[in-house]
Amino acid sequence: MQALNVAPSSISNSVATRRLRHARARIALSDDAVSQVPHDARPQLGAGLRKDFPILAQDVNGRPLVYLDNAATSQKPVQVLQALDQYYRGYNSNVHRGVHHLSALATTAYETSRDKIARFINAASHREVVFTRNASEAINLVAQSWGQENLKAGDEIILSVAEHHSNLVPWHMLAQRTGAVIKHVLLTPDQQLDMQHYKQLLGPRTKLVSLVHVSNVLGAVLDTSFVVGAKVLLDCCQSVPHAPVDVQALGADWVVASSHKMCGPTGMGFLWGKLAVLEGMQPWMGGGEMIQDVYLDHSTYAPPPGRFEAGTPAIGEAIGLGAAVDYLQGLGMGRVHQYEEEIGTYLYQRLASVPGVTIYGPSPQQAGPRGRASLAAFNVQGLHATDISTLLDTAGVAVRSGHHCTQPLHRHLGITASARASLYIYNTPAEVDAFIEALEDTIKFFKET
Amino acid sequence: MQALNVAPSSISNSVATRRLRHARARIALSDDAVSQVPHDARPQLGAGLRKDFPILAQDVNGRPLVYLDNAATSQKPVQVLQALDQYYRGYNSNVHRGVHHLSALATTAYETSRDKIARFINAASHREVVFTRNASEAINLVAQSWGQENLKAGDEIILSVAEHHSNLVPWHMLAQRTGAVIKHVLLTPDQQLDMQHYKQLLGPRTKLVSLVHVSNVLGAVLDTSFVVGAKVLLDCCQSVPHAPVDVQALGADWVVASSHKMCGPTGMGFLWGKLAVLEGMQPWMGGGEMIQDVYLDHSTYAPPPGRFEAGTPAIGEAIGLGAAVDYLQGLGMGRVHQYEEEIGTYLYQRLASVPGVTIYGPSPQQAGPRGRASLAAFNVQGLHATDISTLLDTAGVAVRSGHHCTQPLHRHLGITASARASLYIYNTPAEVDAFIEALEDTIKFFKET
Repeated sequence: MQALNVAPSSISNSVATRRLRHARARIALSDDAVSQVPHDARPQLGAGLRKDFPILAQDVNGRPLVYLDNAATSQKPVQVLQALDQYYRGYNSNVHRGVHHLSALATTAYETSRDKIARFINAASHREVVFTRNASEAINLVAQSWGQENLKAGDEIILSVAEHHSNLVPWHMLAQRTGAVIKHVLLTPDQQLDMQHYKQLLGPRTKLVSLVHVSNVLGAVLDTSFVVGAKVLLDCCQSVPHAPVDVQALGADWVVASSHKMCGPTGMGFLWGKLAVLEGMQPWMGGGEMIQDVYLDHSTYAPPPGRFEAGTPAIGEAIGLGAAVDYLQGLGMGRVHQYEEEIGTYLYQRLASVPGVTIYGPSPQQAGPRGRASLAAFNVQGLHATDISTLLDTAGVAVRSGHHCTQPLHRHLGITASARASLYIYNTPAEVDAFIEALEDTIKFFKET
Repeated sequence: MQALNVAPSSISNSVATRRLRHARARIALSDDAVSQVPHDARPQLGAGLRKDFPILAQDVNGRPLVYLDNAATSQKPVQVLQALDQYYRGYNSNVHRGVHHLSALATTAYETSRDKIARFINAASHREVVFTRNASEAINLVAQSWGQENLKAGDEIILSVAEHHSNLVPWHMLAQRTGAVIKHVLLTPDQQLDMQHYKQLLGPRTKLVSLVHVSNVLGAVLDTSFVVGAKVLLDCCQSVPHAPVDVQALGADWVVASSHKMCGPTGMGFLWGKLAVLEGMQPWMGGGEMIQDVYLDHSTYAPPPGRFEAGTPAIGEAIGLGAAVDYLQGLGMGRVHQYEEEIGTYLYQRLASVPGVTIYGPSPQQAGPRGRASLAAFNVQGLHATDISTLLDTAGVAVRSGHHCTQPLHRHLGITASARASLYIYNTPAEVDAFIEALEDTIKFFKET
């Protein structure tokens, strides 16, 4: 996908242009091809990163593990595991409330992670970053705090048919409580969000637009230039880990993302919100950390981000996410994006060449300059997606099958399930080949039985 | 404290009796004294556990660290760190939704942790255990799901003046929304919850009682035999890590606790609820994991506990908490309780002997057979609590100062802050001595300047 929000001098536009120029030719990626980027001291993506991910060096069912379930969760580099271990072995303590040595160290590390995330997404201030358990919680926070306060019967929320359940269910619940009305952007024939339809839906009663930045099934990248005219939340779970994302350039009011999909620990995600917007929001959960003063009958609340972080936070996890951000920054998000474009296109083209395969979402050609994510949800004629992933697992290839938390999208596509291969920075062209070979074996197996 | 909810044959009653018999004599604990428990192969508590907690083997400000801030957060044994590391290096994957090898391993480990916790607190079913980020979130879950649905204007909630902010603010917020009325149990002259006052507050309009099982400041243990006649939530953050707790015997509807105070990772806590009660509760957060089926305009929900776990859960943290439960079970919670009673009494008595010191909460004698927690919040005449903890830190002694998230209690006690030393399984009598010595030096320092 195109890194829409990076400066024009970014590597990504030229990469997108180059990719498009060669769109019809199969790109035979190799480590040599990747190494044609200008020489620098940073490790090569793909094979060059394998040493950082010990989990990948294992056999599954007697075959080398090929982990292609990265849209569900990424693996973690040793640098992140070391940061966790150093915290727990060296300076574990509760934060903010202690004056002793360990508490000061833990507080500094916790808040430094907030700073790192703020810089990573180009937030205007570290105060715009709220730690949550996951992206789902971040959306619920907005729905239950801002939504509950600001929406009334007849107000309209625009979502799309391609949303993850985490960007549907919180709004269903809010609509039930408030009487707000939900409308859904449909897809174009090439299975991208239909922004002409979006413009038709947008009206004077539209109070909120909440859309997925990059679809976890279609791989389609949202054209955020259309998304104006109301409060806007963007689900960036599949964009922040994969490309430079500049929240100020996105034009959104809130952005959510999850740690575990971007090399960080589980149990951690974040909400970014414009400071003025966060300051206007009432707290959602009550408890320690989020208060100014507590009396027997009422409380006053801390300013953001503390206002939204009740109780002892996920300290180790925040520090781990900070280390993940360091790791990704060290690689360079422009390079990450470039690599994923190349290997993602290779995945798409190899998969598209397998007889009987349907891939969902726009092709790289149809996606145009915005590109598509380095993942492919697909079905094979006559086979059930679960059978595909079960058979692939016997060959050591981990893909996901099911509805990928997008039941409405699957219904819209007329299917109940799909298989999905999703790539990340450590996957190699050779793994794509292994996947395709195992898939061809799987198809052959089912045809013969 | 007495382990109220263990079988009569438990070691704890006899220990409590013995402790009371010798209550007026200073108990000169030593490792020899501790080793007088019947021979078994399990490690000795205190000094015998230090090898499991690498963080404790460090100097702070040139002196050996004496970590006495355990009521804020406990340290983690290597067994827990190894469980985390094994997860991330060996089988990190998203749970529940994948058929591939790593996903199956992760799902099994995640759900096995739920089973471990259920057994640890004697839940009737693993389905009664809901993973949350922390205990605060667990209380907010009950307040915003059950409370929002069941409380109306004029209904009464009984709390106490000794509650942690996490057991005050969620109810303030609920009362504001519903018009429910909050009443507060006051203290007896010896600073325990006044259960006669509680009985006076309890009436036909009482819909909910939410009380702290063991106070993080007073050390007082709730007499749960009084707590009947309405829905009951118990904040067990300071009891579950320290003594056998049997949720079925407690007579509560909900119990909350946090992982990071019981040797587990941060970013994790749990809500236990009676299954029938949980089944009657509407979901709070929406997202993946908690749904049955999602349509464009509505959703149906999974049964508990999944209903309350929206989005990718804190998988590693749940597995880490499971390892913490294994660790504590390995020690034996009866032995943990016995050890803490002994060293806690030693702390109390040594601290009480320092001139000018006021300790809050009941003395061990006043606490009676329920005992008191192995912590002591205190002030020194003429000194500010923050100055005490700052000076103690220069001697390597980590204690907390402030309001310990109990501002109303501090106001009730007529103070703005206190210092607090809180012990856990790895603390030793020698550390109590080091703390007392450093405190005496601190007092001397301030008297001389």
